[in-house]
Amino acid sequence: MRGPGWQLCKQLITRRVHSSSFALKEVELTSVRYPDLKRGPFGRLTDSDVTHFRRLLGAERVITEDLDGYNTDWLRSVRGASQLVLRPRSTEEVSAVLRHCHERRLAVCPQGGNTGLVGGSVPVFDEVVLSTSLMNKIIDLDTNSGALVCEAGCVLETADTYLAERGFMMPLDLGAKGSCQIGGNVSTNAGGLRLVRYGGLHGTVLGLEAVLANGDVLDCMSTMKKDNTGYDLKHLLIGSEGTLGVVTKVAISCPRRPACVNLVMLAVRSFEDVLSTYQFAQSQLGEILSSIEFMDGASQECVVNNLNMSHPLPGHPFYMVVETSGSRDTHDEEKLSLFMEEAMQRELVTDGVLATDVGQIKSLWQFRERIAEALLGDGYCFKYDISLPLNAFYEVVLEMRRKLGDSVVTCCGYGHIGDGNIHLNMTTRDFDAAVLSKIEPSLYEWTAQHGGSISAEHGLGLKKRNFIGYSKSPSAVALMQQLKAMLDPHGILNPHKVLPDN
Amino acid sequence: MRGPGWQLCKQLITRRVHSSSFALKEVELTSVRYPDLKRGPFGRLTDSDVTHFRRLLGAERVITEDLDGYNTDWLRSVRGASQLVLRPRSTEEVSAVLRHCHERRLAVCPQGGNTGLVGGSVPVFDEVVLSTSLMNKIIDLDTNSGALVCEAGCVLETADTYLAERGFMMPLDLGAKGSCQIGGNVSTNAGGLRLVRYGGLHGTVLGLEAVLANGDVLDCMSTMKKDNTGYDLKHLLIGSEGTLGVVTKVAISCPRRPACVNLVMLAVRSFEDVLSTYQFAQSQLGEILSSIEFMDGASQECVVNNLNMSHPLPGHPFYMVVETSGSRDTHDEEKLSLFMEEAMQRELVTDGVLATDVGQIKSLWQFRERIAEALLGDGYCFKYDISLPLNAFYEVVLEMRRKLGDSVVTCCGYGHIGDGNIHLNMTTRDFDAAVLSKIEPSLYEWTAQHGGSISAEHGLGLKKRNFIGYSKSPSAVALMQQLKAMLDPHGILNPHKVLPDN
Repeated sequence: MRGPGWQLCKQLITRRVHSSSFALKEVELTSVRYPDLKRGPFGRLTDSDVTHFRRLLGAERVITEDLDGYNTDWLRSVRGASQLVLRPRSTEEVSAVLRHCHERRLAVCPQGGNTGLVGGSVPVFDEVVLSTSLMNKIIDLDTNSGALVCEAGCVLETADTYLAERGFMMPLDLGAKGSCQIGGNVSTNAGGLRLVRYGGLHGTVLGLEAVLANGDVLDCMSTMKKDNTGYDLKHLLIGSEGTLGVVTKVAISCPRRPACVNLVMLAVRSFEDVLSTYQFAQSQLGEILSSIEFMDGASQECVVNNLNMSHPLPGHPFYMVVETSGSRDTHDEEKLSLFMEEAMQRELVTDGVLATDVGQIKSLWQFRERIAEALLGDGYCFKYDISLPLNAFYEVVLEMRRKLGDSVVTCCGYGHIGDGNIHLNMTTRDFDAAVLSKIEPSLYEWTAQHGGSISAEHGLGLKKRNFIGYSKSPSAVALMQQLKAMLDPHGILNPHKVLPDN
Repeated sequence: MRGPGWQLCKQLITRRVHSSSFALKEVELTSVRYPDLKRGPFGRLTDSDVTHFRRLLGAERVITEDLDGYNTDWLRSVRGASQLVLRPRSTEEVSAVLRHCHERRLAVCPQGGNTGLVGGSVPVFDEVVLSTSLMNKIIDLDTNSGALVCEAGCVLETADTYLAERGFMMPLDLGAKGSCQIGGNVSTNAGGLRLVRYGGLHGTVLGLEAVLANGDVLDCMSTMKKDNTGYDLKHLLIGSEGTLGVVTKVAISCPRRPACVNLVMLAVRSFEDVLSTYQFAQSQLGEILSSIEFMDGASQECVVNNLNMSHPLPGHPFYMVVETSGSRDTHDEEKLSLFMEEAMQRELVTDGVLATDVGQIKSLWQFRERIAEALLGDGYCFKYDISLPLNAFYEVVLEMRRKLGDSVVTCCGYGHIGDGNIHLNMTTRDFDAAVLSKIEPSLYEWTAQHGGSISAEHGLGLKKRNFIGYSKSPSAVALMQQLKAMLDPHGILNPHKVLPDN
């Protein structure tokens, strides 16, 4: 049931290397790279603070040495100067820590898996790092409803593995799944590869518990799918990037794991054909479509060159990954075969490769999931994550190429076409302020002019906070600032993140 | 492909009567029925206020006579004493009205289609009614993404009809669709019959515009599926029942209309079999399941008797309605046939009727959608809408029957089993305070003890505001009160609703 160009997926990745083999350069301190940043009027950590925390948590969970991994982001683009990392094991401990920090005006950077891409998950100056890594228990799964309750520090993949053994799955999946944590996912409103099917976290999170800046515990736990009793406060925490509270527990609605999953990678001639193929996939695959992604040729060349991987469909200008998940394999295979055959006949796609078993599917996904890692191999990565109407979707990459010419190594676009969300990335050998000034703020202006959002799923963090006005109205930003002042009057929670400098 | 007991749906409803043929008794004033309620320290409407509003809106949109329809709720259970209804046509007019009310401390009751079931949509005392009915324009539909933008006063069914002509559908559907409005749906976080497939409004609303108590316009409009730029303020408005702002525009993500829809009504022997059939439907129908509802025998007897309808499957203790929606009819029919055959063979269901065309489907749906209307035929309806874990789901009806005995005419349960949401209804000939005191607060205690929510989708409104503590923590309620004080310092927006009396 394959068109003339179709191949079945074989073992694709023959020469994989691990990203840690890239030479690691020392990252410039954030306060040096961004000299306009001014430390807020916060307390300075004293020996007596450290003694207090040791009494609260025990000495082994109060870390004062080798903090580089906590101070530096995954992209190696920002580096804070925290001297203290705290690793609480319970909500009560988080509460006690924050109560002390609130009284002492000590700034705090809550940190999950530290996989954020906008400088939101590491300190800017000397904030105390509050790591949720040891709060990693799975508390309960209701096998009638699929409601999972777990602590904030659960790693996404660990939770998904637990669910898989019980016939369920996490409603979100992202490249960082092996290290990102549920609490961080919720705090950043993570999107990912299956939002097109299962929706975002504002829809799937059922309840949460958080500790506010003053140490008060805000209990919004519920495992019910529907609960219209008053204002739904959990949404304030979802996507607030640790600036309004520290998420400590999460209840999330998990779908049943589908009986069958199939994946195709498609080679496509032009971006117009990518759009037509997307529309065609929607109509043909309908309810079994569980992911639809696109990658341009430049992103795939980068994966091939920097990760030393061999591509199943080399040399095409555009690619798509289309995943289906359903309850009956014969139906899904028939839908997918008809889609593939007709897409070839209509000349929407020029070639394709089909994966039907777990290993093959995993292999193919790597050409999408490991792009971010591959880009880091070029040196420094300027990372943008924007929502755009589909009629302007890829235009932004062409616009940037025109603008930046050969001042960058790679300029590529890929991402979640089913959600109107493109990842735009430009790389240089080292951080280059001149390139940055060519990109910002003109890229944000362009995005706003085309009706898009300047951050679709990555958040604002440190890097984009001052550009919030390109996507949010002054009335909305003013209200956000009121909320921040109400919930965190001393501004100790994740300062210099999300909200613009005054 | 039908089991021995299966019938194809014929014209089912032979002797339909309209609900308006019930004799309408005068509804007692809310201030009389609930004598503990005290009017707040609000301004009293003067001739000069009315003159001001006439200048703003024109005389014909300032209504001072025949206000009974605005003062009385659909259930005919509460009646306010407003002397003024305003019908603005634009956000600017809503803003000007609220600015005046804020300055003059005039209390305001925002009103959409007035289909609410908890006394939230009508005045309690003499609040000015702010009707959104004339703000009913559809502004835009993006046929790439399915993002619909419309004014708050659009009637749900009107929007759905507009979408149907363009290959899309509203992601929510409820019995009141012919009169409820999008703005009211959003303000009450309406759930309905297809939440199990398309999720709730916190997931599907993309953006909104609202006018705050002081007349400021809060612009949170976006048509992008993903936008992580700061706190997602729209969620504060969703489900806040008009107490934090008046929603004026909504952008909502609309799914493509499915190519084929099928419906079965099933007769089931016991509630255990309802649960097993639900689980079996999930595994067999998976991604094509678009609605799964249950009704008990008492609810169906009430429909038959009070609406004079003939039932396709009379005399069974339990019923289910299972709807499928998909992209390929042959696949859906095969899945549904296999499900039906096996459910019969396993003796999960005792009889069933299948509808495959639009008219038949509509006919069958009436036995679920018109229960609320039928119950009113008994006289007065005590209406509860609770979320419960499935292992305690129907127990609540039996508990109430034990408690109330023959002091009620009907005691029945029905609702959204796929969402863990049961509608529990008790009827009497007239409002009966003694029956009410037998139900409340013990029903709420029972619900809290079983881990449920005291309002799944109806909201708290007037009737349930003082029971919020059974579903929300003191810390959450305290924060809600802070939010209300911040956004509406004079408390003019929909007073006596949602938040408990101090």
